[in-house]
Amino acid sequence: MASTVSPLAPKSFPAMPAIAGVKLATAAAGIKYPGRTDVLLALLDAGTTVAGVFTKSKCPSAPVEWCRANLRGAKPRALVVNSGNANAFTGKNGRQACQFTAKIAARAIGCRRADVFLASTGVIGEPLKAQAFDGVMEAMVVAAHPKLWREAAKAIMTTDTFPKIATASAKLGKATVTINGIAKGAGMIAPDMATMLSFVFTDAPIGARALQTLLNDGVTDSFNAVTVDGDTSTSDTLLAFATGAAAADGAPRIFNAADPRLKAFRAAFNAVLADLAEQVARDGEGARKLVEIKVEGAVSKASARRIAMSIANSPLVKTAIAGEDANWGRVVMAVGKAGEPADRDRLSIWFNGIRVAHKGARDPAYDEARVSGTMKSPTIALKVALGLGRGADRVLTCDLTKEYVAINGAYRS
Amino acid sequence: MASTVSPLAPKSFPAMPAIAGVKLATAAAGIKYPGRTDVLLALLDAGTTVAGVFTKSKCPSAPVEWCRANLRGAKPRALVVNSGNANAFTGKNGRQACQFTAKIAARAIGCRRADVFLASTGVIGEPLKAQAFDGVMEAMVVAAHPKLWREAAKAIMTTDTFPKIATASAKLGKATVTINGIAKGAGMIAPDMATMLSFVFTDAPIGARALQTLLNDGVTDSFNAVTVDGDTSTSDTLLAFATGAAAADGAPRIFNAADPRLKAFRAAFNAVLADLAEQVARDGEGARKLVEIKVEGAVSKASARRIAMSIANSPLVKTAIAGEDANWGRVVMAVGKAGEPADRDRLSIWFNGIRVAHKGARDPAYDEARVSGTMKSPTIALKVALGLGRGADRVLTCDLTKEYVAINGAYRS
Repeated sequence: MASTVSPLAPKSFPAMPAIAGVKLATAAAGIKYPGRTDVLLALLDAGTTVAGVFTKSKCPSAPVEWCRANLRGAKPRALVVNSGNANAFTGKNGRQACQFTAKIAARAIGCRRADVFLASTGVIGEPLKAQAFDGVMEAMVVAAHPKLWREAAKAIMTTDTFPKIATASAKLGKATVTINGIAKGAGMIAPDMATMLSFVFTDAPIGARALQTLLNDGVTDSFNAVTVDGDTSTSDTLLAFATGAAAADGAPRIFNAADPRLKAFRAAFNAVLADLAEQVARDGEGARKLVEIKVEGAVSKASARRIAMSIANSPLVKTAIAGEDANWGRVVMAVGKAGEPADRDRLSIWFNGIRVAHKGARDPAYDEARVSGTMKSPTIALKVALGLGRGADRVLTCDLTKEYVAINGAYRS
Repeated sequence: MASTVSPLAPKSFPAMPAIAGVKLATAAAGIKYPGRTDVLLALLDAGTTVAGVFTKSKCPSAPVEWCRANLRGAKPRALVVNSGNANAFTGKNGRQACQFTAKIAARAIGCRRADVFLASTGVIGEPLKAQAFDGVMEAMVVAAHPKLWREAAKAIMTTDTFPKIATASAKLGKATVTINGIAKGAGMIAPDMATMLSFVFTDAPIGARALQTLLNDGVTDSFNAVTVDGDTSTSDTLLAFATGAAAADGAPRIFNAADPRLKAFRAAFNAVLADLAEQVARDGEGARKLVEIKVEGAVSKASARRIAMSIANSPLVKTAIAGEDANWGRVVMAVGKAGEPADRDRLSIWFNGIRVAHKGARDPAYDEARVSGTMKSPTIALKVALGLGRGADRVLTCDLTKEYVAINGAYRS
């Protein structure tokens, strides 16, 4: 873990209510980090549904393969997450570590192994000594408690500088339902820590298929709209669990994501995902500036997304922002390399609302002192108008600093 | 320009012979840099043919558009290159600057404007004051000399730390023909300098279409196999000129790139391109290590290229190499994110010939001390075997250091 908290960290943590049907426990199993918790157990009441979105990597970690294999038809009763070791690129040992972890959790809880969901984050390529969980699992089951959200977020941190938690509530029928989420990590994390992990829980009674559709839709403009370094971890995992406990308060059971009664819930669910995703960007390795990139006037939303990502992942744009330089020439470069329709002579660019380039050349009213001043802000809003169509999109990233190189150039051991 | 020469610079410069039909001159026009040359003029004898390859950016510079428009059917008589200003994203002024530069060169030489090829490298978005060339053009025409290759390479440098020159000769029929090349710049260059430029000259009598085919083929494994930061400049330009003067020595005129008499020439031509491209990687901004990435066992060469580029452009792989860390976990990550067929459990990885990972897990014979030792080398050969097919490829890159961030985070002005 970094010794100093990101200057972009939220100023305060939200109060996290309990979610009926969810209990949490953490423990220090000594996987890698001395003197801190590194295992999270979430206990889920019978009847809970689950949905998941995972890394697109062709070389996923063993826990990602475990979750994918067990997602369909799952009756989840537990989630076990460890930090310090990603259990990725660990071959047969990796699969065995998953089996073993699920076995001891299932035994302690009294459920099937397939009902235990798993995630790991940390070093790649080191065998995970899952035996360490054996010593703490039963005590965690006994100690599990509905209110340990911040502790849960802390236990899954690697190079994160602050725990990431978010909550929202919404009306579902006559009941008020709650959505809580935790997350860790931006992009790939040093020293060779892998992963973005996030877990979202609700008491709303939502069927697995509807929950999966909600999650697929929700990630598009939240976790999939965030990039730190363009690198994709072997372990990215986002799981959503719906306990259904609010049915007892009169919440209707929902089996179709298109059900109009879901409107308020969907907005709250998406807000939790967006909040967590923004926190991930705010904790980007070495980040000193949060950068919002808006692209409008593209031929489609998909085209706007690709252009925004080209800008967000450009090392030259990111280093310029670190240097507080409104270097719109590099923004033009990044637009040009995206491979999407763009007409140089219609392009306009703004930094924090100040137009610096217009119709393919420097803005006639360009004022260097004013632009330099705004670049000192910890948040930078970069807008590009292409002037071609009505496609618009937004992504979040952070700057690329010497600290990023220092963190990621540090030796593994 | 950087004040210190890259530690990866070649230890010596080759002696560059004259190319019959080519004369060179440089001048200090005062575009941006005080106390150094910033304009190159190459005079070409009548009968010269030309071929070109340009940036794929959708927002190219004005000189790129100029060259593209004039390439077909060209009878090139001159090349004018300036450093200090890229004439990119300069709107109407940019087109006028090209017109004006071509006009004064054409007048001084006595040719058509369309016979003058142009390239610019430097700041993006600043109007280019082409009037400055008016004061030096006629004197350059008078002073032009066949042997000023190193001076030519110096005049086009921006943040380059050394001039890039290469030469080779080959038999073409009974004649010996010569190929000389110069180049500048890696990726996008700071402070917001754009561009990789390279110009190759030969006295071989090769028709324009055959020369274009040779150039298209030649870039695949040279300039297109090099990456510094994955950013594509608005101005990348590679031009090849063939004066045909060697026809007087008995070299046959070649109009078809598939002509078997071209075999030796093609090898020499490709060697010059590869030499220049490697020098570009050796002068990557802030580079301390030259990294060769070989991928084999892929389903095709194209697939191997995409995987190699995914590794070469990964900030996490590049920072690990800067930190002298044989972090093969990040190599797995970069293979996984390439989107190409890969089977984690067949993957093997070598650093400088030492196998560190085998069949999806750490090599059983892994020796940390031995691996750490080899990572101190200024050249790192990283090999990945996928075990799927016979597709292989190779790309060159450099490490990502704090100096890269410092160079690119420095303010433009």
